[in-house]
Amino acid sequence: MAEQKATNVHWHEGDITRGHRQKILGHKGATLWFTGLSGSGKSTVAVELEGRLSELGFLSYRLDGDNVRLGINKNLGFTAEDRTENIRRIGEIAKLYVDTGVIALSSFISPYSSDRDQVRALHEAAGMDFIEVFVDCSLEAAESRDPKGLYKKARAGEIKNFTGIDDPYEAPRKPEVHLHSDKQSLDEEVEQILSVLRSRNIIPA
Amino acid sequence: MAEQKATNVHWHEGDITRGHRQKILGHKGATLWFTGLSGSGKSTVAVELEGRLSELGFLSYRLDGDNVRLGINKNLGFTAEDRTENIRRIGEIAKLYVDTGVIALSSFISPYSSDRDQVRALHEAAGMDFIEVFVDCSLEAAESRDPKGLYKKARAGEIKNFTGIDDPYEAPRKPEVHLHSDKQSLDEEVEQILSVLRSRNIIPA
Repeated sequence: MAEQKATNVHWHEGDITRGHRQKILGHKGATLWFTGLSGSGKSTVAVELEGRLSELGFLSYRLDGDNVRLGINKNLGFTAEDRTENIRRIGEIAKLYVDTGVIALSSFISPYSSDRDQVRALHEAAGMDFIEVFVDCSLEAAESRDPKGLYKKARAGEIKNFTGIDDPYEAPRKPEVHLHSDKQSLDEEVEQILSVLRSRNIIPA
Repeated sequence: MAEQKATNVHWHEGDITRGHRQKILGHKGATLWFTGLSGSGKSTVAVELEGRLSELGFLSYRLDGDNVRLGINKNLGFTAEDRTENIRRIGEIAKLYVDTGVIALSSFISPYSSDRDQVRALHEAAGMDFIEVFVDCSLEAAESRDPKGLYKKARAGEIKNFTGIDDPYEAPRKPEVHLHSDKQSLDEEVEQILSVLRSRNIIPA
């Protein structure tokens, strides 16, 4: 039993909190939840922001289809149930990142308000910053870009339940950041996000 | 189309890699996969290691039952299938952490070799460090500690399929770190792990 007591002493020494990790990193963790149509420019702005944060010495990480849909969520498809589970898991991972002190950049269409609101509630209940970034872009502009040729396939009926075509996109009502990617420059978008991160003391001013 | 080209230029500027993130942190990411019986001392040594790494200015994060089983894996039970999916998801999250540059400390019984080997393969295929830490402890010692009273319940038949009682624990054959928590002090265990992290250039010597 003496050994067990010694262990307890050590436990308290090593009980590292979110605050300790923020001190190591020099900033707070937060989730930036990019939402918008396919082709709206979510990944483009997330990548650019990641570059700017890195230049400033801040640690961010992008969660996107490449590292999530092909990894932890590879056993999920595109039924309504699977889409909801997809967003739920991403929300839980983002929350782990915030706890770690990292700025998580989640970049998924995430078309349903209820799914996004659930992730928000999860964060807010834990006292974590959840910043919804609405990458607003007209369907016409997004479809004319069509970087992956998905709209073309959706119009041809080769992809079903495609957001904006035959599945709804529910726009955020009160996003913390509202970008207009068909009107703003990339630099303007990034500056708009950085200013919100500064005003919330997530990164130093 | 001119706008799209400009966007491509920006893309390359912002294309942040694992290497950039390691530079921000001053160390490499890695997964330390603690495995051992319930009560063997996995969490105790992980917590102590976390404290030491934090003192040294290195960023680690513990993945354990509290933040995983109650979060992303709350929709999983304890059937063989669910246990395997539990470990698979934890492995994928750990891999995201390594990519982020963080030292992930995964602390789960993870009794089956095949599950652990799958997580190892996942890491190694991506050129990531996977360090299996076998927290070796006799069943007698673990059961006499019984910090959560689980062995008592398992012996009474109140918990079924309990590792070491009526479910097997498959010990690692070639763990990168082999601890003997019923014979070593906590400091010795932590030093043994740190020396492996240094010899693999995960943290600076």
